[in-house]
Amino acid sequence: MNDASSTSPSPTAAMLVIGDEILSGRTKDRNIGFVASYLTQLGIDLKEARIVPDETPEIVSAVNALRARYTYVFTSGGIGPTHDDITADAIAAAFGVGIDHDPRAVEILKRWYEGRAELNEARLRMARIPFGADLIENRVSGAPGFRIGNVHVMAGVPAVLEAMMDALAPSLARGTPVGSVSIDTGLGEGRIAGPLGAIAKAYPTAIIGSYPYFDGGKHATVVVVRSRDSAVLEAAAAAVHAMLADLA
Amino acid sequence: MNDASSTSPSPTAAMLVIGDEILSGRTKDRNIGFVASYLTQLGIDLKEARIVPDETPEIVSAVNALRARYTYVFTSGGIGPTHDDITADAIAAAFGVGIDHDPRAVEILKRWYEGRAELNEARLRMARIPFGADLIENRVSGAPGFRIGNVHVMAGVPAVLEAMMDALAPSLARGTPVGSVSIDTGLGEGRIAGPLGAIAKAYPTAIIGSYPYFDGGKHATVVVVRSRDSAVLEAAAAAVHAMLADLA
Repeated sequence: MNDASSTSPSPTAAMLVIGDEILSGRTKDRNIGFVASYLTQLGIDLKEARIVPDETPEIVSAVNALRARYTYVFTSGGIGPTHDDITADAIAAAFGVGIDHDPRAVEILKRWYEGRAELNEARLRMARIPFGADLIENRVSGAPGFRIGNVHVMAGVPAVLEAMMDALAPSLARGTPVGSVSIDTGLGEGRIAGPLGAIAKAYPTAIIGSYPYFDGGKHATVVVVRSRDSAVLEAAAAAVHAMLADLA
Repeated sequence: MNDASSTSPSPTAAMLVIGDEILSGRTKDRNIGFVASYLTQLGIDLKEARIVPDETPEIVSAVNALRARYTYVFTSGGIGPTHDDITADAIAAAFGVGIDHDPRAVEILKRWYEGRAELNEARLRMARIPFGADLIENRVSGAPGFRIGNVHVMAGVPAVLEAMMDALAPSLARGTPVGSVSIDTGLGEGRIAGPLGAIAKAYPTAIIGSYPYFDGGKHATVVVVRSRDSAVLEAAAAAVHAMLADLA
């Protein structure tokens, strides 16, 4: 079997995190790492991530730059009921479409809040969806996300974002997943850099990364070999093991 | 005393994380959160963060977009000794300057490796510094970072990046730190959204954020009031407490 990636290029993606609280340091983002791992498993290449504040022009400009460039865009944050939740309006502005209470979303919220809490004006705000968008189910807290064009708009609370990724994943085109082999060399980067560079040159279609870590007393390095072609992956990983045997 | 921020605008900043390993999900970034909190304490507003892969055109284009727009840029990743460490060359390309072994950096590496390890060709690569740059001290692992123009180039290993931030911080212009008050309301966002929006309108110079969290069984919300003006901060926080007393 030939490598599928040589004939059909893999889908690409960008992640856009929207929220002052990440940029102030108050909240540590967990969504980029989650989406990165999730997309890697689907064979979709996350090529870029951005974090922008809760400001309409910043959101509009980032969404328009990213959606023009990548197969998919995923956003997190700013779709709740409060005054600082401006993402839905900003996405509508980015696409140049209107926005209003969506009857499908209103119905979902009615069912969700029945017997739980009053569906007040603020909660109803979460049914405001740009014209032409599809809804993304939220089994954790009711209020849906949405997809418009190639942009998937999700909540910022990690448990909700994770449920929304599960809900939307079946609609995504997938690529050949990138296989990877991690090798903890036990050696500092400076020790392995020369021969590792030669291996990287010998296997130009493999992506060979060198990730130093420092565990308090010792500097060491994990080498990660990545490829969509399993034969290349195995050969390059074997070369790294042979290099370590030589250095020992 | 008047609010200093009304006369001298606060410095702004962007963070650029360079590394395939973050975008593949293999490594979870910790540097953005660290730099965000660090700059907030200095009164510098982090306005944007980006993560790009280890690809020269991506690094060049992000650095040039960000350095034109913000007072400072901080980068992490890609300045080690291995073949995939291309940040220093990419920064030189972004500034249109040459790059070579820097005598000051070579001297630092000679002293660092003396009695520890051989200063081989790969390790010497870490002394390649763009022309016109100043060095940033690295007391954790020797090899320096550098500053060129308004761009500060640091290592990706968190312990090293943190040491480099400490080393470079005295050179940064500071703003009036943004004061903040966090109030855990114990209530869902939909309950507080209406009156909180009214408070946000009444205190337009305060930044009032609403941060829902989900702890398994319960949806609740932390409200964060932020302002550089302590009188505004206290008044807006008092209004939030009064709102909660009304809702109780």
